Amino acid sequence: MTRHRIDRRQLLKLLPAGAAVLAAPAVAASTDRSALKARLREARGRPVLDRSALDEPIVIDRLEMLRRDGQYFVRATCTEGATGWALCNPGRMPSAFAIFPNRIAPYLVGKDARDLDTLVDDVLLYRSSYKWQGLPYWSALARTELAILDLIGQRSGLPAHALLGGKVRDSIGVYYANGDRKHSADWVVDRLKASVAESGARAVKFKLGARLRTTAASTARDLELVPKVRDAFGDEMTIYADANSSYDVPEAIRIGRLMEEYDYGFFEEPVRFDYLEETREVADALSIPIAGGEQESSLWRFEWMIANAAVQIVQPDLIYFGGLLRSMRVAAMAREAGIDIVPHISPMGLGALYMTHFACAVGNTTDFQEYKGDPDEVPYEIAGTGERFRAKDGRLTVPDAPGFGVRFDPDYLRGLEPVPT
Amino acid sequence: MTRHRIDRRQLLKLLPAGAAVLAAPAVAASTDRSALKARLREARGRPVLDRSALDEPIVIDRLEMLRRDGQYFVRATCTEGATGWALCNPGRMPSAFAIFPNRIAPYLVGKDARDLDTLVDDVLLYRSSYKWQGLPYWSALARTELAILDLIGQRSGLPAHALLGGKVRDSIGVYYANGDRKHSADWVVDRLKASVAESGARAVKFKLGARLRTTAASTARDLELVPKVRDAFGDEMTIYADANSSYDVPEAIRIGRLMEEYDYGFFEEPVRFDYLEETREVADALSIPIAGGEQESSLWRFEWMIANAAVQIVQPDLIYFGGLLRSMRVAAMAREAGIDIVPHISPMGLGALYMTHFACAVGNTTDFQEYKGDPDEVPYEIAGTGERFRAKDGRLTVPDAPGFGVRFDPDYLRGLEPVPT
Repeated sequence: MTRHRIDRRQLLKLLPAGAAVLAAPAVAASTDRSALKARLREARGRPVLDRSALDEPIVIDRLEMLRRDGQYFVRATCTEGATGWALCNPGRMPSAFAIFPNRIAPYLVGKDARDLDTLVDDVLLYRSSYKWQGLPYWSALARTELAILDLIGQRSGLPAHALLGGKVRDSIGVYYANGDRKHSADWVVDRLKASVAESGARAVKFKLGARLRTTAASTARDLELVPKVRDAFGDEMTIYADANSSYDVPEAIRIGRLMEEYDYGFFEEPVRFDYLEETREVADALSIPIAGGEQESSLWRFEWMIANAAVQIVQPDLIYFGGLLRSMRVAAMAREAGIDIVPHISPMGLGALYMTHFACAVGNTTDFQEYKGDPDEVPYEIAGTGERFRAKDGRLTVPDAPGFGVRFDPDYLRGLEPVPT
Repeated sequence: MTRHRIDRRQLLKLLPAGAAVLAAPAVAASTDRSALKARLREARGRPVLDRSALDEPIVIDRLEMLRRDGQYFVRATCTEGATGWALCNPGRMPSAFAIFPNRIAPYLVGKDARDLDTLVDDVLLYRSSYKWQGLPYWSALARTELAILDLIGQRSGLPAHALLGGKVRDSIGVYYANGDRKHSADWVVDRLKASVAESGARAVKFKLGARLRTTAASTARDLELVPKVRDAFGDEMTIYADANSSYDVPEAIRIGRLMEEYDYGFFEEPVRFDYLEETREVADALSIPIAGGEQESSLWRFEWMIANAAVQIVQPDLIYFGGLLRSMRVAAMAREAGIDIVPHISPMGLGALYMTHFACAVGNTTDFQEYKGDPDEVPYEIAGTGERFRAKDGRLTVPDAPGFGVRFDPDYLRGLEPVPT
């Protein structure tokens, strides 16, 4: 784990408002920033996939998207007949599946899976799909990448975390995230307590604001929740809160100061997620780490956020941002700047499993990763265990079986059908 | 038409490199920029749809996406039974259609079409679809908006340009855009000459670079093309060129200087489209107007580009950016800054027709709009004329019939079927 703060922020706070741009330190800051940007660009250009143990080509023979009962899968098959699987998010893929057969699969079939680092860049040129960057395209590509990583793992015998550079830990702690905005502060506290009791989590997160806006009621609830959650869990609990783009800059600073008073761990997405300069203004005014990046689709904008200290925790979504390899590039940039990555992940579509492989292969992360249980309605087991993937005593342990170490029920898989086109 | 240049750029060029940030004018520039940003934000918040003549509610009763032979349509029907239609781009909608039934239609059915300005914002909250912003989501929403605007027009008897604030001209000039990168410079010149002869266009555009990169061959071709196209058409022709994100900053400046030498009208997308600060660096170094924004999905980033003079021509794609109303908000910001909007539009899916309604209702645009002919393989006529929508003597004349003034062949429409889900 690395420190959240970087010194420039403290330095800027010592200067009177508006003076930074005129003061001598601005020259140093500008030079520092240029040097940092160059290092970030170098970092995000490095290949991620460790192919050192992959001696033979693994040629992708078939890529299919299949479904039943609203559940979507990607299956990757190599010319030797090995298969890799990925489960998709049933809340997203029904709206995005058509991208897969038209803009992703045709390009990747016939390619050597060991070239995955360049494939996830070059596929963007296929039918000018670089114009399609954003959640729907990246989700379809990310699920394809997961199936290909699983295929490489099945073929080579390596677990996915080894392909991502090797694990630096065997398990990760989780924070339990509550997504409610409709109920009272007391209701949220009760639910968090129940989730903590069930999962053993030693960190929690809850929602602030009204999602992209505030209301009088949401503000009253915010002011009640921030002290109340701390009072309910005591000093030992790590507590985060997520505003989902709700505030303007002054309100974000006001709520952030309250969070500082109650020793919160980070403040997620205080203002509109694409308002990068305003996010930096909030970060510059506060000492609590600002977290963000869930909706971000551009490596350049992550570079900007990191180089400008607009966030102190980067949170690419492992799926919306286009997969584990692209998210590892963000992790590499964060490491250069001395800050942590805490990826965003939705629980559906085996989110916790894919996230655990990623987080166990990343050095610069915190003690707690997002967790919302095991809500998938698909029969599977972690290979060789007969068990599903769930937190125990607040921790998720990464499987060491080939690929992602998941085995879907073969009877269930036999009922899958190709997606319509 | 407004001037392309703004004075700040010239001012910055008088200062030694790196000095601007420390010099007294920086304070004034910073204050000016804050004031401009506030004006831009006010401008983009104004409603676009002119509902002054719409006395009765127009309640959306049904929204359907229908297709045949790879052609996709949106049909909007109000409770009184009037219908509006939009044709989609057959190169895009086969990959994006699933967004429509899952994330757009269910929210809009039952709403009053006269609230279109708020509907295109609020639909983003439906199933947290704000996370989906980008070409696939916006294209599905934009085609829905076109069908709804057509519906409002059919119900009220008003042409679409009147709903967009009223036409300020009856016709627009076109520039003929050639998209080739595979053939020789001579081949491009020959094709441009043929297109100009056929369309009567008095402006042309061609491609530079190799699309998101350069090669030795593409650079040699660029250096040949820039003088050759000018020599082929003489001083009276307006000439633009589009690099599609090919260059880094130094190469963009080198090619831009060559374009200045040959009096080119604008330089489109010189560096990676999401590299906004690098785009501004290119703009600051050159006097030729920089054009960009085709891939942009965020109003905030258009605000940034305009406030920072990163571009001198804004080019939201009328479809990829989410429709005519959202693009009008960009036009309103551009007007505040004294610059022009020249929207990007693909030719397929009646692009020229929809663009002409938009451009005839916008004051701050240039004399030339993008045009690539009438390639749609769908039987239609401009209502009451028996003719298709094509440039004559280099101009496109906006229809005054209700809605977009297009009538699709009823026999053809009878063969449509709902998209699969």
